[in-house]
Amino acid sequence: MLVMDGLGGLPMTAGGLTELETAKTPNMDALAAQSLTGLITHVAPGLTPGSGPGHLALFGYDPLTYQIGRGVLEALGIGFPMGPNDVASRCNFCSLDANGLLTDRRAGRIPTEVGAKLVQKLRAIKLPGVEVFVEPGEGYRFVVVLRGEGLSDEVTESDPQRLGVPPLTMGAAADAKDPAAAKRTAGLLNQFVAEARKVLANDHPANGNLMRGFAKLPDMPMFPDVFGLKAAAIAVYPMYKGLAKLVGMQVLDGAHSGEEEMALLEKAYKDYDFFFVHIKWTDSAGEDGDFARKVGVIEDVDKLLPRILALNPDVLVVTGDHSTPALLKSHSWHPVPMMLYSKHCRYDANAEFSERGCARGALGVMPATNIMPLALANAMRLAKYGA
Amino acid sequence: MLVMDGLGGLPMTAGGLTELETAKTPNMDALAAQSLTGLITHVAPGLTPGSGPGHLALFGYDPLTYQIGRGVLEALGIGFPMGPNDVASRCNFCSLDANGLLTDRRAGRIPTEVGAKLVQKLRAIKLPGVEVFVEPGEGYRFVVVLRGEGLSDEVTESDPQRLGVPPLTMGAAADAKDPAAAKRTAGLLNQFVAEARKVLANDHPANGNLMRGFAKLPDMPMFPDVFGLKAAAIAVYPMYKGLAKLVGMQVLDGAHSGEEEMALLEKAYKDYDFFFVHIKWTDSAGEDGDFARKVGVIEDVDKLLPRILALNPDVLVVTGDHSTPALLKSHSWHPVPMMLYSKHCRYDANAEFSERGCARGALGVMPATNIMPLALANAMRLAKYGA
Repeated sequence: MLVMDGLGGLPMTAGGLTELETAKTPNMDALAAQSLTGLITHVAPGLTPGSGPGHLALFGYDPLTYQIGRGVLEALGIGFPMGPNDVASRCNFCSLDANGLLTDRRAGRIPTEVGAKLVQKLRAIKLPGVEVFVEPGEGYRFVVVLRGEGLSDEVTESDPQRLGVPPLTMGAAADAKDPAAAKRTAGLLNQFVAEARKVLANDHPANGNLMRGFAKLPDMPMFPDVFGLKAAAIAVYPMYKGLAKLVGMQVLDGAHSGEEEMALLEKAYKDYDFFFVHIKWTDSAGEDGDFARKVGVIEDVDKLLPRILALNPDVLVVTGDHSTPALLKSHSWHPVPMMLYSKHCRYDANAEFSERGCARGALGVMPATNIMPLALANAMRLAKYGA
Repeated sequence: MLVMDGLGGLPMTAGGLTELETAKTPNMDALAAQSLTGLITHVAPGLTPGSGPGHLALFGYDPLTYQIGRGVLEALGIGFPMGPNDVASRCNFCSLDANGLLTDRRAGRIPTEVGAKLVQKLRAIKLPGVEVFVEPGEGYRFVVVLRGEGLSDEVTESDPQRLGVPPLTMGAAADAKDPAAAKRTAGLLNQFVAEARKVLANDHPANGNLMRGFAKLPDMPMFPDVFGLKAAAIAVYPMYKGLAKLVGMQVLDGAHSGEEEMALLEKAYKDYDFFFVHIKWTDSAGEDGDFARKVGVIEDVDKLLPRILALNPDVLVVTGDHSTPALLKSHSWHPVPMMLYSKHCRYDANAEFSERGCARGALGVMPATNIMPLALANAMRLAKYGA
């Protein structure tokens, strides 16, 4: 499964071509001619998927059933190895005045190096009965993870989302299923905030912190168990490695480019039944609004495709986790082109891997969660249902 | 509703045509030009339907909700008229050594005539408080049906699925909803097995029997009640007559060929609102891997189509219960071509009854359970929903 992040696009002007339609992709088009094609929706029609839901859907999990909290996503994004009892929180450094009132929710947007040094100081904080991990993020952001038995993520947030008031005291969420655990966790987090104020007293504009997005790992069946596949993930960025690890895939490390990802794939090909290969740069170019660069990334990936085909996979799926049109400079709700190649796929008349080509494909617009069952069927790995 | 069993196919070589695409079908293509067309999925994308689930979906029943047990399907397949309290079991004759250990789970694959004679002997077995039916099947197979109040199909199987051990004693399933009924039924079945060993003592290699697939009729609403249609079924083989009877259709007997099925249809046409007409031989040819024969069967059916059209039906649906590509010699997961003709159907641009033609149809890929509501609407038999 080759995933180009944010693959789907839009024309920059009415009547124009999308990024994928503009790109010269002879290899993808040749594969489309022998593939079943369509457009996929990851969450629901009209809904723009985040990276988490987009990938979960590709892996066969309904993202409305399996929700990944922001804290977990943030921890995955910085490569922190979350454990089953961990509660992760997405944190900001913030600015407080002499009365403890909030004056800047982002601490003057301090640079990453400064944030990293302050995180070092926060690591001195100890809390009773739990391990505390403090990990730096970008700029004013960082992650706190509490590890221990009996912790809950059903805790209200400390960020009041406005200035001139003190940060909120955290407490058990009104609908917490385990109020005792939630209350204890909130107490520990409030203690962390109080300690942090002491530690950061002289570090204005970053003399306080805000905590939100509390989350534990979702309780979900593992991909290798669900689909009976020994599965590996090849990605450059921590977030995507983390998402793959979350569902029980083995992460193969060491690649920093598409070429290096191909090298990893070739080397490990015999050792696994399933590979998720993630290409990040389509999305980055889309987010930057750089149409031409996104076209270039797609053309680069097209040149890599023969290396995958040379491995002679039973089934090859090429698609994306959501659209990121350069026009919008952000993720979008537009369904994403998808092709599934196999010897037995009964390919359709479409011979063009593009938004408009795949719209004519035999799969129509379908939920991304259908991909894995179809892929397994095409690999002849599913039994008949009923007699 | 004209159902060609196993209609969907695959090209034998890359770039080739499927069975349906190869067949010369001028009548079907002319009808497709005036029909709404699409591809249908019977269970779920990627899942290969058995005959039971495939037909239930065509009849409008979600096959994941309404499950037909193996024993029931086996009983239907031999034309046994199951009653609402009956528990059917799929049985094998087997070989036991002097110590009662299993040496052959299929009794040396005794021929059907031998099996039928031994079934006659087993009919002497009486069990307290229930009627016992023993019916011959193919070769070493037969069916046992217990009839009486308070029986359960939640019983563990006697087949240990390996040799050198005795058959298992049957008992109530661990998750039985009515453990008392399950225990009583298991006791009766164990008694049957003990009696059978005495009766068959001198019939090695068929000196024992194995019992599995216990099943009662599923509890389901009847087709005539659900859809308000007086419904008849025309089929040659018992399995399909049985499936139609299962949902409350009237079975019209006596046909042994497509022509004879048409004659039955013509004769009874004024007496019913709905006809299910089943053509078996597309599937048989596919299962045999005989591409040319399957093409021939489709062409024969095409020649029958004018006889149906001459009856001037309000709505005519032509489709299949699953794919059986000659290439795979088995049922497969590929969606099945479908067309719905009526005066009001708003037909699409596709004028070709084929896998690739229907992939361009206005219905897209849709669940087979949508067919009945669409057919009723086109027959002007559905009221407006809401004001």
